[in-house]
Amino acid sequence: MTSIKLAVIPGDGIGQEVVPEALKVLAAATPEGVTFEQTHYEIGAERYLATGEVLTDEVLADIRTKDAILLGAVGGKPGDPNLPPGILERGLLLKLRFELDHYVNLRPSKLFPGAASPLANPGEIDFVVVREGTEGPYTGNGGSIRVGTPQEVATEVSLNTAFGVERVVRDAFARAQKRRKKLTLVHKTNVIVNAGKIWSRLVAEVGAEYPDVAVDYQHVDAMMIHLVANPSQFDVIVTDNLFGDIVTDLAAAVTGGIGLAASGNVNPDRTTPSMFEPVHGSAPDIAGQQIADPTAAIGSVALMLDHLGYPEAAAKIDAAIVKDLESRQGQGPRKTAEVGDAIAALVVA
Amino acid sequence: MTSIKLAVIPGDGIGQEVVPEALKVLAAATPEGVTFEQTHYEIGAERYLATGEVLTDEVLADIRTKDAILLGAVGGKPGDPNLPPGILERGLLLKLRFELDHYVNLRPSKLFPGAASPLANPGEIDFVVVREGTEGPYTGNGGSIRVGTPQEVATEVSLNTAFGVERVVRDAFARAQKRRKKLTLVHKTNVIVNAGKIWSRLVAEVGAEYPDVAVDYQHVDAMMIHLVANPSQFDVIVTDNLFGDIVTDLAAAVTGGIGLAASGNVNPDRTTPSMFEPVHGSAPDIAGQQIADPTAAIGSVALMLDHLGYPEAAAKIDAAIVKDLESRQGQGPRKTAEVGDAIAALVVA
Ligand SMILES: CC(C)[C@H](C(=O)O)[C@@H](O)C(=O)O
Ligand SMILES: CC(C)[C@H](C(=O)O)[C@@H](O)C(=O)O
Repeated sequence: MTSIKLAVIPGDGIGQEVVPEALKVLAAATPEGVTFEQTHYEIGAERYLATGEVLTDEVLADIRTKDAILLGAVGGKPGDPNLPPGILERGLLLKLRFELDHYVNLRPSKLFPGAASPLANPGEIDFVVVREGTEGPYTGNGGSIRVGTPQEVATEVSLNTAFGVERVVRDAFARAQKRRKKLTLVHKTNVIVNAGKIWSRLVAEVGAEYPDVAVDYQHVDAMMIHLVANPSQFDVIVTDNLFGDIVTDLAAAVTGGIGLAASGNVNPDRTTPSMFEPVHGSAPDIAGQQIADPTAAIGSVALMLDHLGYPEAAAKIDAAIVKDLESRQGQGPRKTAEVGDAIAALVVA
Repeated sequence: MTSIKLAVIPGDGIGQEVVPEALKVLAAATPEGVTFEQTHYEIGAERYLATGEVLTDEVLADIRTKDAILLGAVGGKPGDPNLPPGILERGLLLKLRFELDHYVNLRPSKLFPGAASPLANPGEIDFVVVREGTEGPYTGNGGSIRVGTPQEVATEVSLNTAFGVERVVRDAFARAQKRRKKLTLVHKTNVIVNAGKIWSRLVAEVGAEYPDVAVDYQHVDAMMIHLVANPSQFDVIVTDNLFGDIVTDLAAAVTGGIGLAASGNVNPDRTTPSMFEPVHGSAPDIAGQQIADPTAAIGSVALMLDHLGYPEAAAKIDAAIVKDLESRQGQGPRKTAEVGDAIAALVVA
């Protein structure tokens, strides 16, 4: 019997609704001889507003002892004066990514059959974005002087290291080699030149070890055009933390919406638990109504099972998602729990 | 007789093809009693590769004496080893924007009748992006140590000042008031918190002077989704230099492509010449074939005429562009010069 310790952080808003569906599907897909021993952590906007606590050292230490983390979404009502921007993001979500060294933020983009792309001619879309997760403009480096005055100056420092870039670039090349053998670097090397040089150099250097992988480069602005005009051309995209944030939301949009986009915050060295979460946020505007689509959270469970060494179980979930999406065509909207039930049933079928 | 001194920088690639068409239409639209006295500057990738010169102090000083600048595009072949990334961008294009204090980078986005949007249901799209042009991650601040080694570290510093943000926010509110009275701030305040605070504060403060303008906020990543799912909701978007770069390319894409997107690099204080240019680049892959669409360059002339105080002449060009686009429907591709001829003819008709 293998026992896997799973930290579950449903979080806020629709996080509370999609995570139970993800766990339902996890139960259905769990291989024989494996159990998931769950520990639930009620952290997020609600907890912060009630207690002032975001992510305590104790909770972080406890999470660190787990084998994986499943997260729903964290975030309160936009503009809530009691919830300054960044408190939860920097204090919880990014803190987990940084403390647990989740340097590969893995975001597959696939146009599922029956998914409603806003594009007139989406073509076949099937790529993976490997977003750097521990550097770039996300380090919280920088500061402000003369805050609130006409003389205020604020800086934001993007930190980029050869160490940090090389490891994520290696991961991306390894993935490209197992896929269609094409890697696209996305950056803005013509303006963000210092960081751009590290990225370009390491893609060239690591690429030399992968002569069978074709390498391509796109500026992040031009990428906007490619992703709506011809997204089929991409296989593996590797990019920095901020560009990755932006590009993956567009990728999610063109593949039928953020309700389907799964992600993993992975530490490929496996020295800490990796974290799996839907790309969407807590969506307070639609929370509590059982109308959120749990598919992205369920897809994140598949990424988790794959990471934990159960690719067959992951594949079962992915196949069930595809079947469910096909069966959804022409149907009216379903409740969050109905989607979870349907996919769980397809997994065991 | 009013004589207007116009600096013309055709630049590289298709810049050399679209600028003559823009000048053709300018000639057709120039009001009675006005003349444009043109000075052409051959600067860009070709010049740099031949002479090592980008933008000399003499040329810059000369351009400074003009009333306006019309620019085609600058940039050489991607990956040219003799043309390191950033040389032309930082040394020419951004140098002009920064030296001439073009703090309003104005980028209208309109879905013209007959323009082919890649979206299945684009709806009516008509918004203006007011992109900050002199600050943010574009200041060239930052550096690298241990370049080329595994210990390389590179920083990029985004500089944001209340002075710089306030003036562009004021411009955006003034435009919103003359339009549909809605302003959307785009930023990433939940991660880029120091800069985010300046932007949020000044939008709130200046907004208090415009009680009739509705104010909205979107994270740059969520903006990707809105721009493909429901772009009609936007009127005036105000954002920083880098986010504006990204958002305006997506805006151009959803409104039928970068061949139609015009822009102005404006100094609203009128102490220096403002610069007008298509959003597209030099597109070396299609250069010299007379297949580039000059409409974006022609639209930039309309923005220039409006800025110079000739709104009727500008409106004539805009109307001619719309008529031309309508007449293009169902027609085969036309040569660059044919499009210019057609629009010029419609302007005088
Ligand atoms: C919530 C936010 C901090 C986060 C990010 O910017 O990474 C989110 O947008 C994401 O993409 O996971
Ligand atoms: C060429 C480049 C420096 C420029 C920018 O990033 O501003 C371009 O992309 C633009 O949008 O005008």
